[in-house]
Amino acid sequence: MTIDTHEDARLRQLYDDFAAAGLNPLWTQVGDLMPMSPSPQAVPHIWKWSTLYPLAQRSGELVPVGRGGERRAIALANPGLGGRPYATPTLWAAIQYLGPREVAPEHRHSQNAFRFVVEGEGVWTVVDGDPVAMRRGDFLLTPGWNFHGHHNVTDSPMTWLDGLDIPFVHYTDAGFFEFGPEEVTNEATPNVSRSERLWVHPGLRPVSQPGPRPSSPIAAYRWGHTDRALDDQLALEDEGHPATAEPGHAAVRYSNPTTGGDVMPTIRAEFHRLREGAVTATRREVGSSIWHVFDGSGTAVLDGVEHVVNRGDLIVVPSWKPLRVAADSRLDLFRFSDTPIYEQLNLYRTEEDSR
Amino acid sequence: MTIDTHEDARLRQLYDDFAAAGLNPLWTQVGDLMPMSPSPQAVPHIWKWSTLYPLAQRSGELVPVGRGGERRAIALANPGLGGRPYATPTLWAAIQYLGPREVAPEHRHSQNAFRFVVEGEGVWTVVDGDPVAMRRGDFLLTPGWNFHGHHNVTDSPMTWLDGLDIPFVHYTDAGFFEFGPEEVTNEATPNVSRSERLWVHPGLRPVSQPGPRPSSPIAAYRWGHTDRALDDQLALEDEGHPATAEPGHAAVRYSNPTTGGDVMPTIRAEFHRLREGAVTATRREVGSSIWHVFDGSGTAVLDGVEHVVNRGDLIVVPSWKPLRVAADSRLDLFRFSDTPIYEQLNLYRTEEDSR
Amino acid sequence: MTIDTHEDARLRQLYDDFAAAGLNPLWTQVGDLMPMSPSPQAVPHIWKWSTLYPLAQRSGELVPVGRGGERRAIALANPGLGGRPYATPTLWAAIQYLGPREVAPEHRHSQNAFRFVVEGEGVWTVVDGDPVAMRRGDFLLTPGWNFHGHHNVTDSPMTWLDGLDIPFVHYTDAGFFEFGPEEVTNEATPNVSRSERLWVHPGLRPVSQPGPRPSSPIAAYRWGHTDRALDDQLALEDEGHPATAEPGHAAVRYSNPTTGGDVMPTIRAEFHRLREGAVTATRREVGSSIWHVFDGSGTAVLDGVEHVVNRGDLIVVPSWKPLRVAADSRLDLFRFSDTPIYEQLNLYRTEEDSR
Amino acid sequence: MTIDTHEDARLRQLYDDFAAAGLNPLWTQVGDLMPMSPSPQAVPHIWKWSTLYPLAQRSGELVPVGRGGERRAIALANPGLGGRPYATPTLWAAIQYLGPREVAPEHRHSQNAFRFVVEGEGVWTVVDGDPVAMRRGDFLLTPGWNFHGHHNVTDSPMTWLDGLDIPFVHYTDAGFFEFGPEEVTNEATPNVSRSERLWVHPGLRPVSQPGPRPSSPIAAYRWGHTDRALDDQLALEDEGHPATAEPGHAAVRYSNPTTGGDVMPTIRAEFHRLREGAVTATRREVGSSIWHVFDGSGTAVLDGVEHVVNRGDLIVVPSWKPLRVAADSRLDLFRFSDTPIYEQLNLYRTEEDSR
Repeated sequence: MTIDTHEDARLRQLYDDFAAAGLNPLWTQVGDLMPMSPSPQAVPHIWKWSTLYPLAQRSGELVPVGRGGERRAIALANPGLGGRPYATPTLWAAIQYLGPREVAPEHRHSQNAFRFVVEGEGVWTVVDGDPVAMRRGDFLLTPGWNFHGHHNVTDSPMTWLDGLDIPFVHYTDAGFFEFGPEEVTNEATPNVSRSERLWVHPGLRPVSQPGPRPSSPIAAYRWGHTDRALDDQLALEDEGHPATAEPGHAAVRYSNPTTGGDVMPTIRAEFHRLREGAVTATRREVGSSIWHVFDGSGTAVLDGVEHVVNRGDLIVVPSWKPLRVAADSRLDLFRFSDTPIYEQLNLYRTEEDSR
Repeated sequence: MTIDTHEDARLRQLYDDFAAAGLNPLWTQVGDLMPMSPSPQAVPHIWKWSTLYPLAQRSGELVPVGRGGERRAIALANPGLGGRPYATPTLWAAIQYLGPREVAPEHRHSQNAFRFVVEGEGVWTVVDGDPVAMRRGDFLLTPGWNFHGHHNVTDSPMTWLDGLDIPFVHYTDAGFFEFGPEEVTNEATPNVSRSERLWVHPGLRPVSQPGPRPSSPIAAYRWGHTDRALDDQLALEDEGHPATAEPGHAAVRYSNPTTGGDVMPTIRAEFHRLREGAVTATRREVGSSIWHVFDGSGTAVLDGVEHVVNRGDLIVVPSWKPLRVAADSRLDLFRFSDTPIYEQLNLYRTEEDSR
Repeated sequence: MTIDTHEDARLRQLYDDFAAAGLNPLWTQVGDLMPMSPSPQAVPHIWKWSTLYPLAQRSGELVPVGRGGERRAIALANPGLGGRPYATPTLWAAIQYLGPREVAPEHRHSQNAFRFVVEGEGVWTVVDGDPVAMRRGDFLLTPGWNFHGHHNVTDSPMTWLDGLDIPFVHYTDAGFFEFGPEEVTNEATPNVSRSERLWVHPGLRPVSQPGPRPSSPIAAYRWGHTDRALDDQLALEDEGHPATAEPGHAAVRYSNPTTGGDVMPTIRAEFHRLREGAVTATRREVGSSIWHVFDGSGTAVLDGVEHVVNRGDLIVVPSWKPLRVAADSRLDLFRFSDTPIYEQLNLYRTEEDSR
Repeated sequence: MTIDTHEDARLRQLYDDFAAAGLNPLWTQVGDLMPMSPSPQAVPHIWKWSTLYPLAQRSGELVPVGRGGERRAIALANPGLGGRPYATPTLWAAIQYLGPREVAPEHRHSQNAFRFVVEGEGVWTVVDGDPVAMRRGDFLLTPGWNFHGHHNVTDSPMTWLDGLDIPFVHYTDAGFFEFGPEEVTNEATPNVSRSERLWVHPGLRPVSQPGPRPSSPIAAYRWGHTDRALDDQLALEDEGHPATAEPGHAAVRYSNPTTGGDVMPTIRAEFHRLREGAVTATRREVGSSIWHVFDGSGTAVLDGVEHVVNRGDLIVVPSWKPLRVAADSRLDLFRFSDTPIYEQLNLYRTEEDSR
């Protein structure tokens, strides 16, 4: 837009008056506000487990866990997002570390949360009074507004991945928070939670609990089930039947048994297994996702840059950035994303190139 | 309605003219057509396993199974429904008997079908090419328009309960039927079907199969899962937690993992377990149901009449007829009903008296 | 199925024992129960207005309307359905006639009802206390369990078409009925009902009434709106824009503004307008429908038989029977069907031949 | 959290190492990230029409409209949001000004947009080739990914309110944009758009357009309908019937006739009318809203501060900030909000105090 020179002063005055009046014109910034395709500030980035874990350990020595700080959780801060503890604009991802005999006090909040266990066992998370054991490979839910606290009943520390919609809820000003007791409300350490005894029977629902719920009532998705489901898909593929997401690539989505949909209204969670040598298509989609290398090693081509990834690493994929994964060994990947937000609001798109 | 005497002839003529014109007035029959509450022609009735099973065995000797007759299925014919093979106006319930080495040929139809296995094992039902083992206590689905056939690979006969929506589909003129091969299309006898390997992992869905489906993709709900789910509910009750449908009465509903709803659009299926001595409330509901005594014995007070029921017996409950069940021993009951029809069409009501 | 001759006696005994035990084998009747495609007992049939209306008038002279008989409604009795007042297995269609100053007393029932006004005006139907004027071409709703009565405030009789799901609700034993007052509860005769004042503003909903409802809250869909909507479609077609159902054939569906779906859970209602000379494709679908010639004349090819149809005639189309309509003059057709039942229960199919 | 003094150095080193590794601990900021209740950065604010309109006029003189800048739209920049053109974190609100004979070129984008006409007439907005007249009080939709441009066919300028989800789509990185022609694709100036001719017939849907759509197909909700709907509610209230949102307060929600839900997946729009002297309850809700004084004057008590508001003024209400409105004269208010986002994602809460 070219503006006649001798009108410059009037125009400058207009812009000053806009500013004074709390106004801002579209025409000077439409390109930034409304780009041709998503142009995220968040950058593609990989966090190495070999860096993360020692820092979590040092935190364990130096920082107590308790009321006020609430959790010893160290969040990925996307380099494009100005130092805020946001893995992406919508998703929080953190390493949480709980030392021997420590207790993370109870609280509840609107934010939806899950844990995915990376190392060890011996912590019980107590969700609305139901103690839930945590063990490597388990995926555990704390949907919005459920009280929850954690306590470690062993002499060893334990570490897991926390995923929440904190950035989204913060941006949209939708969060409520309430403190609970400083100790967990139920110190029992059962092998299986009450939630699982009610809900983890495949295809069966308690008649006493009819109807849909916004979030899954399953507090823990156990590693054994996930592992078998993936093995079964690969075996079916070997026998010539459709089962896998693409050749050599098994994948399950954690789901809400009362709807068949995602586990929580804002978060999708999946587990992927690639055979040694398998390569995914290059995919991009609206919305962001985070991949965690649960086991094995491979290569991630993220926005055109190749990275070697190993056990424990975290891969952050901003909106519309392409990703291709290749497995050097059998590669097990946990993944979560904000896709349900976009699907429900009719903003979802995806594109794939399988060459 | 009183009609002036000297108009009788004109009125008779009017009614004759109605009949000739293919018309029928409301006012002569509104009470029958539109009763104060459901007034079913179907009657409450109990079929004793001790009668049914010997007749099924005799059929096995005398009647071949094959193309044309299609299945050696002997249907409950409600005494109120004029001899038609209808357990209720909407539901078909039959004993199916397959002798040693016999084959029931493949076909498909719009009608939704399930099998609940009463006795024995050794038959595989092949659903769209997927062989599914049948064993006592298993609940198996053949939703509308899936090809299916059965074959017995042993030297012993096998018997199961067939449930379908044949009367409903017949009444509403919605049925299509197609013959398949005379032999089953896949003679393998795997322990676990492909359907189960894809879908029977609690809370997990294959990423390759997104979205809702009108019917459950689970071909077999295994007895082991059902049994454990019920035991878990009773144990939770013992520990003081809400889990059972009412005191001493555990119950699970078979569900469609892609929606959380009923297994098929017209049929609800559940399994109930009463502790010894437990008594249900007296309940009635719009729509009909059929209960099968899987194990144990007890008393059914059906429309005010008390019946002793034992293993294998079938209890048919027409619409709005009250039922109360009391357990003399631990009592295991399979139940199916047409409730989804009424719920979806906003015609459902229920009433309960727990005195 | 051939049965060895010397086993005939044993077989006969088996069948006798089946009957005595309340059983009925599938193999003797599978073809009738489960035909290759819908094989309705109801027959395609046309009722001529020139026959119907004089009979309605004679009823007006001879039969009082009042408590007990409830309504002076003369139902189409499909010749294939044994004299019962069923237009099809699911649908009731009747001419209702209300003489000068007459009152049809209030009642309510589970059955869903509508009126489509064929002749005259001067009756108000009072639905849950809301008086609704009835005039030629109006489509009026009385969804299940709303109290309703009618009164004629003029010295002329009035006639309309009643459509209900009486046969379906009767067959499925889902009906409740309750008497209301013998006079209508509100004798006001406003031009526009309260329901319309709240709900008949296109695209606008009262904030005080959020959420979906199983049936439309609109008590009257006025002829003026219907007529304009059809004219607009034909004008758009003239201008080259997609709007009509097929060339020369405009059609609107009456809808529930709280869901966008059908007006009632069991009944679909539409209005069709064919230009002079227009011809529809030959269509058949699962489920039954009834067409009413509101105005004009044409030809209906119903299950291969050609019929001339004129103003007031009623065309009954059983499940899966093909229909093609051709317009001799501009042809206006009201249509209702049981399609929502089949769509919700995943039993719907349709087929069309536009040659 | 108190940290032992002689560990300070180690702790400082830990925090430095966090920063270097792209990490950020929860415990130092949980209170800001997860407040007890929503604590928006956006502030409650009122923009006066007497300020806005002269600035829009000056823009008309100084700034051309055309390709690149795309629109002469001047956005509300919430004082709490750092000068960005965001009325709230999710919503964009702008005055758009189109001078005599000007054309705003065609484009399309993922962002959902509406116009609400404040002054004048003579502009047609062309939505996917359908010219839609704009007149005072009309509410017009351009759901995501529809091409649209505007042209003024008169010698007078025209002004309207633009509402979009630009901030939300920007934050969530979901936007796509595409340029269309520089002139509008259809220069016709019909009184009524094709969209209205198809869809604006109350309770009637074209049979040719079945099924739900994510956004309303109605391009224009005309002032005449809105005005009548509000008058009808107040008249019903006068007659003693439930109709208004609260005493003296009529309100309609613009809705999607294919679902009964909101007009677009991210935006709710309503029109409110208060009688002279009426006062609303004090309400707050999760999510933000913007009120526009269409006509009349009154008082807005916004987060405890009283403001006099007059024709044209805009009131911005951030999440969870209470608002009460009182009408000095009859007060007509257009309102839009981001409520559908929160309702669909199970994050919605509201609270009201009617003292």
